Amino acid sequence: MRYISDILIEKIIERKSPVVVGLDPDFEKMPKEITLKYLEKYGVTLKAVSESIMAFNKGIIDAIYDLVPAVKPQIAFYEQYGIEGLIAYKWTCDYAKEKGLIVIADVKRGDIGSTSQAYANAYLGHVQVGSEKISAFESDYATVNPYLGDDCLVPFVTYAAQAAKGIFVLVKTSNATSSQIQDLKVNGTDETVYDQVADMVNHWNNQVVGDSGYSPIGAVVGATYPEELITLRSKMPKAIFLVPGYGAQGGGGDDVVGAFNADGLGAIVNSSRGILYAYLKCDLGYAEAAREATQSMIADINDALARANKKYWV
Amino acid sequence: MRYISDILIEKIIERKSPVVVGLDPDFEKMPKEITLKYLEKYGVTLKAVSESIMAFNKGIIDAIYDLVPAVKPQIAFYEQYGIEGLIAYKWTCDYAKEKGLIVIADVKRGDIGSTSQAYANAYLGHVQVGSEKISAFESDYATVNPYLGDDCLVPFVTYAAQAAKGIFVLVKTSNATSSQIQDLKVNGTDETVYDQVADMVNHWNNQVVGDSGYSPIGAVVGATYPEELITLRSKMPKAIFLVPGYGAQGGGGDDVVGAFNADGLGAIVNSSRGILYAYLKCDLGYAEAAREATQSMIADINDALARANKKYWV
Repeated sequence: MRYISDILIEKIIERKSPVVVGLDPDFEKMPKEITLKYLEKYGVTLKAVSESIMAFNKGIIDAIYDLVPAVKPQIAFYEQYGIEGLIAYKWTCDYAKEKGLIVIADVKRGDIGSTSQAYANAYLGHVQVGSEKISAFESDYATVNPYLGDDCLVPFVTYAAQAAKGIFVLVKTSNATSSQIQDLKVNGTDETVYDQVADMVNHWNNQVVGDSGYSPIGAVVGATYPEELITLRSKMPKAIFLVPGYGAQGGGGDDVVGAFNADGLGAIVNSSRGILYAYLKCDLGYAEAAREATQSMIADINDALARANKKYWV
Repeated sequence: MRYISDILIEKIIERKSPVVVGLDPDFEKMPKEITLKYLEKYGVTLKAVSESIMAFNKGIIDAIYDLVPAVKPQIAFYEQYGIEGLIAYKWTCDYAKEKGLIVIADVKRGDIGSTSQAYANAYLGHVQVGSEKISAFESDYATVNPYLGDDCLVPFVTYAAQAAKGIFVLVKTSNATSSQIQDLKVNGTDETVYDQVADMVNHWNNQVVGDSGYSPIGAVVGATYPEELITLRSKMPKAIFLVPGYGAQGGGGDDVVGAFNADGLGAIVNSSRGILYAYLKCDLGYAEAAREATQSMIADINDALARANKKYWV
């Protein structure tokens, strides 16, 4: 079967780039030539913010769409701007799709079965209204929080298996306090909570796996925990890892090589702030600076993979 | 200090009702006199769904606002209808607030620090745009997922402490597979993952506690696990419990008494489908049926509390 994971793997190889650009808009950090224009036009309103986000994201997407396989809008940064923010979120997903990018909705949803079904409908599928199927915020992938167990995963997994969609399940996150829950040792063994989640992911990977050998059920594993990346890699050989924490959060190329399989594939590394706001640290315009930062990141990771003898390109 | 928990406790006593009505709209289950009207007016569109939800929720809120202290819209059921669904979500929160109800945003968000800050801004606070503070979906309470540890709680706790807002942290959820992660025994003891989360909640409870003796940092503990309710009650004496799983999910009055402290306070019990769609099981209109179902539920719980010698009223 050809799943979204197969398409992602193809795009990584084709673009020679296992990099994801995180689209996390921050109104205060956007170029003044954008924000002032819309503040002038719409006053100090969420409409001005929304229009600024769309203009900013368009500039970013236009600058990087040929370099990377995927983008990852973090929905919190849109939700905080209300309905107007979500209009910008939807526009961003649709525009990125139009430009040939895989869109990963970083929503970290998860709830009891009937509610997770509604979230899966929202981000991977559609709702039935009378005789019509209507999509709300349809993307290719969504991130999912596993605290409620398989109940919260099943509706997403169903879309993944039947409608060429995918998920990344939070396994070991990049933040400092991720250890409080995720690193607890369980059942009198050396296994942790995140190992258990990895087992859940691997279980699903064995049910649903694509032609490339990779499953549309992936895992989020932070760049900030390089040792855990290596152990988790061996636990979930068929999972594509979505690796946050590169750049602003501290991880570098050599920290992330453990996320990749021996074939040099099986991981995508995200950077958000380090790319979007690269212009604040140089003399280039924001789009050009984002393109250069993306190219540097790709080179950094590909170089680290070459050093680790994990070249996925020929 | 007077926190949102104090206001909630006052309203429970005043209305003699520890019941929360869950506002989980399901277009297919709403009365045809509502949905057909808007389908006719707007065609088979999300606009028709959104208008139907608002009309339906208005009927429900008008029927129950004097009976209960709070309502809990589950945002997934709005998100699946896209921007139009979220317009109905926001309208519902604002209308419930206007009718004197405490609004619990059941969003189950949680992410790394900067992202959780954005979620907290979205659901409990505001964003700064130039010189203005603008609110997106401001509510009184939000539900929070603890898988990422304290990082994901802190921005919400800050709003709770400084701006009379509150949270309910997922501790032990009501669904069947909640045991997969939450019930794992940790660190070679009999303590579970959910016990650890309870300890985190209790830690915050000791930092932030209101005049009523209850903290604005509460806990979600499912009605479907009556024994766990009792143990968790003793672990978090200052936490208000939000108890889902009554009614459609199987819990009854006697199952939830363990969620209450000896003073008969400290818990609110949610029912969604059992109230909203009560009209499908009787001959009343949906609003009247919802009012009756709410009254029965209050009586059921108060009776159980009286039997358990946990009367909070005089």
